[in-house]
Amino acid sequence: MLPSESIERVVELFASLPTIGKKTARRLAFHLLRQSTSDVEHFATALVEMRARVRECSVCQTFTDVEVCGICSSEKRLGTMICVVEQPSDVMAIERTGDFRGRYHVLHGALSPLDGIGPDDLRMKELIARLGPGVEELILALNPTVEGEVTTQYIAKLASPLSIRVTRIARGVPMGSDLEFADEATLARAFEGRTVV
Amino acid sequence: MLPSESIERVVELFASLPTIGKKTARRLAFHLLRQSTSDVEHFATALVEMRARVRECSVCQTFTDVEVCGICSSEKRLGTMICVVEQPSDVMAIERTGDFRGRYHVLHGALSPLDGIGPDDLRMKELIARLGPGVEELILALNPTVEGEVTTQYIAKLASPLSIRVTRIARGVPMGSDLEFADEATLARAFEGRTVV
Repeated sequence: MLPSESIERVVELFASLPTIGKKTARRLAFHLLRQSTSDVEHFATALVEMRARVRECSVCQTFTDVEVCGICSSEKRLGTMICVVEQPSDVMAIERTGDFRGRYHVLHGALSPLDGIGPDDLRMKELIARLGPGVEELILALNPTVEGEVTTQYIAKLASPLSIRVTRIARGVPMGSDLEFADEATLARAFEGRTVV
Repeated sequence: MLPSESIERVVELFASLPTIGKKTARRLAFHLLRQSTSDVEHFATALVEMRARVRECSVCQTFTDVEVCGICSSEKRLGTMICVVEQPSDVMAIERTGDFRGRYHVLHGALSPLDGIGPDDLRMKELIARLGPGVEELILALNPTVEGEVTTQYIAKLASPLSIRVTRIARGVPMGSDLEFADEATLARAFEGRTVV
């Protein structure tokens, strides 16, 4: 016996989002029912506005509210270094370190022949268009997965005729972790990429 | 450097919901950005409609889309037994067992003198109004907390002049748990409430 169809609909919708199970979805719905009508309307409007306003930056293809994102339009960022990532969320993760002074390029995915995802399904053309004489280094920061690896190799090959230094971020044991619990592949990469102290 | 104000607004709003941290909030926002505009509008509309339609059942005070909820209006449910709970979500939890054949009363909270929550802040008047001659048993299913205990005692005292049997649900070791890890209070209650095999 469903207490309310409109609650059930919201529960289903919340549960369709990543990381949210049926129980949490129900809790979220009940939480919203305890909020004021105007608060819920404010929430709903924010969702719709976000979807309507956010587009891909015409340069780096990350999510932004404007034609050219803040990083691409900033004169403080070096145009000589482009860091290639899979998702807009990766840009934000790297920005949080505050260390990288270059610009980005977001592919919106990675090559995956098994899933039928080829270069045309990614923002690869847009990347190639940016590889002019001003670019000195391309830093590949794709996920350490099979797809990320395939994409890394693809871009490295693509850029090899150009006089651009192509690098990739280090793979190794994460900071603060316990060596004992590192998997074999990670440990192997960490040994391979060892540096002089 | 914020990539998009409208994304940040949605992230803040998601993060203000229970059980959702900043990281999950960001993930949810990015997920919605990958959905179609009409899907996001559908989601937003469902939230607003739920908040607008859902009200408290005029009898048991649980959340419902109609004047009298499905349980209160069902002839199959016994009007002689009323199970008192704190929240509408508790009704759903008990309904999932499929065992209880009576009706409910939702208080929308519990007495908490320290937080200044008295009987007038709960649906206590509405409960008293229901305690007519047709009611034979009042089952108190409040949370096993200090507030739940205070509320249980309050209602028991309130009902004592009436010829209504007042019971409370058993407190003891949860099914499938390990006795070794049960806390002292739970074990003490379990011994207190022991029954003949």
